[in-house]
Amino acid sequence: MRNITIETITEAVERALGEDIPARNRELLTALVRHIHDFAREVRVSHGELLQACEFLRRAGDISDEKRNEFILIADILGLEVLVDMLDHKVVDGESESTVLGPFYREQAPVLPTGADISQKSYPEQATVYVHGAVRDTDGRPIEGAVVDVWEDAPNGLYEQQDPEQPDYNLRGRFTSDAEGGYAFRALRPVPYPIPYDGAAGELLRYMGHHPWRPGHIHFKISKPGYQALITQIYDAETPYLDNDAVFAVKESLVGDFLPAPPELGTDFALTFDFILRPAA
Amino acid sequence: MRNITIETITEAVERALGEDIPARNRELLTALVRHIHDFAREVRVSHGELLQACEFLRRAGDISDEKRNEFILIADILGLEVLVDMLDHKVVDGESESTVLGPFYREQAPVLPTGADISQKSYPEQATVYVHGAVRDTDGRPIEGAVVDVWEDAPNGLYEQQDPEQPDYNLRGRFTSDAEGGYAFRALRPVPYPIPYDGAAGELLRYMGHHPWRPGHIHFKISKPGYQALITQIYDAETPYLDNDAVFAVKESLVGDFLPAPPELGTDFALTFDFILRPAA
Repeated sequence: MRNITIETITEAVERALGEDIPARNRELLTALVRHIHDFAREVRVSHGELLQACEFLRRAGDISDEKRNEFILIADILGLEVLVDMLDHKVVDGESESTVLGPFYREQAPVLPTGADISQKSYPEQATVYVHGAVRDTDGRPIEGAVVDVWEDAPNGLYEQQDPEQPDYNLRGRFTSDAEGGYAFRALRPVPYPIPYDGAAGELLRYMGHHPWRPGHIHFKISKPGYQALITQIYDAETPYLDNDAVFAVKESLVGDFLPAPPELGTDFALTFDFILRPAA
Repeated sequence: MRNITIETITEAVERALGEDIPARNRELLTALVRHIHDFAREVRVSHGELLQACEFLRRAGDISDEKRNEFILIADILGLEVLVDMLDHKVVDGESESTVLGPFYREQAPVLPTGADISQKSYPEQATVYVHGAVRDTDGRPIEGAVVDVWEDAPNGLYEQQDPEQPDYNLRGRFTSDAEGGYAFRALRPVPYPIPYDGAAGELLRYMGHHPWRPGHIHFKISKPGYQALITQIYDAETPYLDNDAVFAVKESLVGDFLPAPPELGTDFALTFDFILRPAA
């Protein structure tokens, strides 16, 4: 038998992996075990700290259910989901940058005509914005018929499914790009909101000395058969938390200027933003 | 604002840590985030794989409760708990090696006289063993009055609290070392058993192509004020799984020989094992 020591334990776990497991299992497990063990050796994790971590994860499990996965939130506040998104969607040929979908996307948003307002309620206190631009391919050609699916939070910082006071599908809509690739809709100027911090993710944020706030943004999911779907967020250049987003999802190329709108638009601000999609692989 | 890229995300998370958090929080978080991110970059974790991992952890949470923490079991089968135990208890001055306490320890086991049988039931099919030896300090002096707390599984592979058929505190006992440091008790020759594999830990074992079995062993917790308590396990040299324990807890120095017992002992086998305790820090 081989002796298990601080130095040999990592190899012992690798040696325990079955001969017939898929190559990807082996690749992930070998790297995962090596990094977890290196972490433990490097900072000399104590047994008490390990038990605390296991109790923390149990509490994360306790607050999770079919609708809420606290572990995704934990991955978010450690920057892991954004990193994995970037690894999955390496930007090529000048296409638009992606960022995380987030937990508030809903399918089947109302299909609306170009220029329509996604707000189903009146928010007299909140500034409005006319968002428009073009969807093009990486050769600069307009993409007609792309579905531009958009969603945002209300002025109270809540998405409609979090808030019984909001109409179903409030502040959501699907638009279709025209022959020049053009799209347009009316929306509210988005406000910052905190990610849910009443559970284990909130505990971790306090342990990190970080805050739960995300900068104001509008979500986009743009798709058309034949093109790689783009999931991204556009950030208000004047919103707070742009440089310290709780989930690290902001990229420079995704920041847009909310400029005073010409009177004929009927909104307070106008935001121009073009999107570049690459052909599907 | 600083741009978030595959290369800068790790630094961005470190930069987000609060200025006033305890130094240990910063040390653990900085190393943890670096290793998690390096892992993701190295094997290019996909977004689908991240979501699968989060769903796996949610299932681990679902099967956990006050009595069962599936995350500890997961740490065990990745070799993490044993590693952390070794980091916590570096062997010095020839003291006995420790290993993990495991989830089946119970306090307040019956206090029994030297040589007593810890089995409260008759198991006619199972071989018996007379376990004896001495408890000494790192200078070789006998330690009198050390509490030798022992426990083991029954021939069906279950500890008494897992098995309604067993008497309360079956196969558990506390003994006291005599003036020469001597201790002795009668027990069953321990049998291998599987760790609980009906939940997420079992899923992980299957993903690893590993089995849930532990080699046959007797648990020891030896303590006396003034000495570092020793938590360890003695393994039967002839048990299977000695070289591929599901939780990697076996060490060469903890393997004992179950030799045929002289007739006057009244057991099938005899096991001699001495323990060396170091003074408390």
